[in-house]
Amino acid sequence: MNVVDLIERKRDGGVLSDDEIAWLIRSYTADTVTDYQMAAMAMAVFIRGLDSDELAAWTSAMMHSGDVLDLSHIDAPKVDKHSTGGVGDKVSIPLAPMVAACGVVIPMMSGRGLGHTGGTLDKLESIPGFRTQLAPPEFTAVLERHGLVLAGQSETLVPADRKLYALRDASGTVPSIPLISSSIMSKKLAEGLDALVLDVKVGVGAFMEDLSDARTLAETMVGIGTRHEVETVAVLTAMSSPLGREVGNASEIRESLDVLRGGGPADLVEVTMTLGVEMLRAAGRSDDEGDARRRLEDTIESGRALELFAAVIEAQGGDPRVVEDDSIMAKADRTHTLTADRSGYLASAHARKIGLAAMRLGAGRERKEDTIDAGVGITLDRKPGDHVTEGDPLATLRYRHPARLQEALRVLDGAFVVDDEVSPEPLIIDRIAAPA
Amino acid sequence: MNVVDLIERKRDGGVLSDDEIAWLIRSYTADTVTDYQMAAMAMAVFIRGLDSDELAAWTSAMMHSGDVLDLSHIDAPKVDKHSTGGVGDKVSIPLAPMVAACGVVIPMMSGRGLGHTGGTLDKLESIPGFRTQLAPPEFTAVLERHGLVLAGQSETLVPADRKLYALRDASGTVPSIPLISSSIMSKKLAEGLDALVLDVKVGVGAFMEDLSDARTLAETMVGIGTRHEVETVAVLTAMSSPLGREVGNASEIRESLDVLRGGGPADLVEVTMTLGVEMLRAAGRSDDEGDARRRLEDTIESGRALELFAAVIEAQGGDPRVVEDDSIMAKADRTHTLTADRSGYLASAHARKIGLAAMRLGAGRERKEDTIDAGVGITLDRKPGDHVTEGDPLATLRYRHPARLQEALRVLDGAFVVDDEVSPEPLIIDRIAAPA
Repeated sequence: MNVVDLIERKRDGGVLSDDEIAWLIRSYTADTVTDYQMAAMAMAVFIRGLDSDELAAWTSAMMHSGDVLDLSHIDAPKVDKHSTGGVGDKVSIPLAPMVAACGVVIPMMSGRGLGHTGGTLDKLESIPGFRTQLAPPEFTAVLERHGLVLAGQSETLVPADRKLYALRDASGTVPSIPLISSSIMSKKLAEGLDALVLDVKVGVGAFMEDLSDARTLAETMVGIGTRHEVETVAVLTAMSSPLGREVGNASEIRESLDVLRGGGPADLVEVTMTLGVEMLRAAGRSDDEGDARRRLEDTIESGRALELFAAVIEAQGGDPRVVEDDSIMAKADRTHTLTADRSGYLASAHARKIGLAAMRLGAGRERKEDTIDAGVGITLDRKPGDHVTEGDPLATLRYRHPARLQEALRVLDGAFVVDDEVSPEPLIIDRIAAPA
Repeated sequence: MNVVDLIERKRDGGVLSDDEIAWLIRSYTADTVTDYQMAAMAMAVFIRGLDSDELAAWTSAMMHSGDVLDLSHIDAPKVDKHSTGGVGDKVSIPLAPMVAACGVVIPMMSGRGLGHTGGTLDKLESIPGFRTQLAPPEFTAVLERHGLVLAGQSETLVPADRKLYALRDASGTVPSIPLISSSIMSKKLAEGLDALVLDVKVGVGAFMEDLSDARTLAETMVGIGTRHEVETVAVLTAMSSPLGREVGNASEIRESLDVLRGGGPADLVEVTMTLGVEMLRAAGRSDDEGDARRRLEDTIESGRALELFAAVIEAQGGDPRVVEDDSIMAKADRTHTLTADRSGYLASAHARKIGLAAMRLGAGRERKEDTIDAGVGITLDRKPGDHVTEGDPLATLRYRHPARLQEALRVLDGAFVVDDEVSPEPLIIDRIAAPA
């Protein structure tokens, strides 16, 4: 096979066969197809697209570029959840112990934050001692013991995606639905799951700002999962303002602990419950939404979810006392409060600007090699829809360096809008499942 | 400037500014933009195109990536001719001495053959001792002394094109009109010309098989030349069958010498005269076609063109006796003749197949690193339109290795078609000049 022939065919809008795609991804992983050839191919795919057969083959080839977990010896449904990323999106942290406490096995592999979005791994690492890089035997051991593990992607899983993602990032081929969906799904399918629930974020703080793009991405991923015989459901949820009140690493763990104790902001609780219901349904643990909600609520009321979280924290080297005393996590001691310059209703808290501002404070990474400060972040004192009086606090920035505060404040310009009235937006926008 | 931003803009169909294009080509030449970034950009340009401002800027940036010849001290019009490449296309070899003998200065830079097309440099190197790689001072010295030099592209001219061409070849982005035309024109504009005549070949043996593509390429190149204030004219000529009777390196020099002695096949003479007229006109040496033709014929009848060619051969290290005794060039001694299997008219001699067959015999290169055998090739015993009787010779293959002969014969399958009637094709298809 000749890579130039394949590039030319895709360039001219043609179709690649399963064998050709498998050969391409295998050769790229083995460095016999060069980065510049793959960059040309990625651009051709970006512009010409992949049809559903090509996309299934591409995903499968990526998935098989490295190890594929075999969890078949664990006699329970294995389910994971993946979010396309947002601001203040700490849903995985309360969700995973709640669903696992219902008897669903969750081999959760999460990512790090980049740009305005946070990453679950960074948040978990706010817990003193918590290790997210687990070797495969340890990953499996924690999972077998607790039915839950919260880790980073293993180095041996989907090496093609690591190479291709770095290449796409540097060659202007990131926001392509076939390339995004095959990247996400190849990693999730390599986890050996029975079912997968996708949280596809929509709005100014999401990767997909536009509802129709988000819907296409969701449908595409559900299609890939279904072709690979993994029950896949996607929920479209709003990401125009941050989820919950906290944006920052340690502070998002605190807020997650609040949810596990029965508190927490209403929007965060609602997204967590909605995804939890989907996970229980997909796992075959509940057919009925009301029943599923009650089971999830029971994991909170009984304290089982918090207890399980503490056990997993301990199993992964973290200090489990965090569930009782969150002051053991970092917290920057300087604060700056933004106040309302008029009375009315908070009409918008711009998720992307707030995410970028938190990044400037040190809560996120501009480049992959940047380090994170777990103790800085932004608290929303008011949420969109709240009534405010002139002078009321809108947001509190927790910072360490005045220069970084100034940068963050510049980014926040126009992020908060107070108006005479507000039109509430739905939080849960749609649900997309495979046709029955 | 950020290369990813520029790639994304072109990917999405946007326009790049002059400064952005200059920065891109400069950074690529300096290796600060990587091959994979340029491959993604080349694919985006391939699919999205360049508008005429972008194309002028791109060509200019390529041209200025290295040295630009300054021939302003030579007080005569400097004109070159460029062919997009064909089979049996040895036109430059008789043409250059004829036009130079009329007082036009010709700093001719030619290329090597690749695939089914031959290259002027390879043909010239059939002459024992002839050197085509001249250092800039020697190039200028030969040109000043004789008004003609026949050399390869200097290493210091248009380094961006060498890099980008190799990248395009390996990444499936060759047949793009903006990329082809900027590649050709940047090299020609770096020669410090006053005028340029382009021979754009059309047909199965040409890079552009389709007339409308060839016309677009011609118009694009004329547009670029005109914007750079170099008078540029393109002639579209037929390349469905080889030009002349000889395909091979030494044999094409022999046929070129025939033209310079007043002989040679009619089609080769006609293309040579047509392009010669254009060069004299563009140089301001003649306003009238009849006058220009008479001047060119006079360089043959007087022997001045042949004499000049001998002088340039000697100046470039070659053995000038070749003009009297062409047996000093290589000639393979085995021959195989293809004969007509019926009577009628030769309807087609498929240029690409004949070019590929000559390559298999050793006259051309499949890959850049292959070596050339000057003594092998194919002679057309009949030209399209000729009447043939069953058993008449159609073509004679001159070869050294029987295995290569067999490969060549396989490639020639179906190359020659004898039919009851033939419809003659025009040789000179069109002329494209800048609007007055």
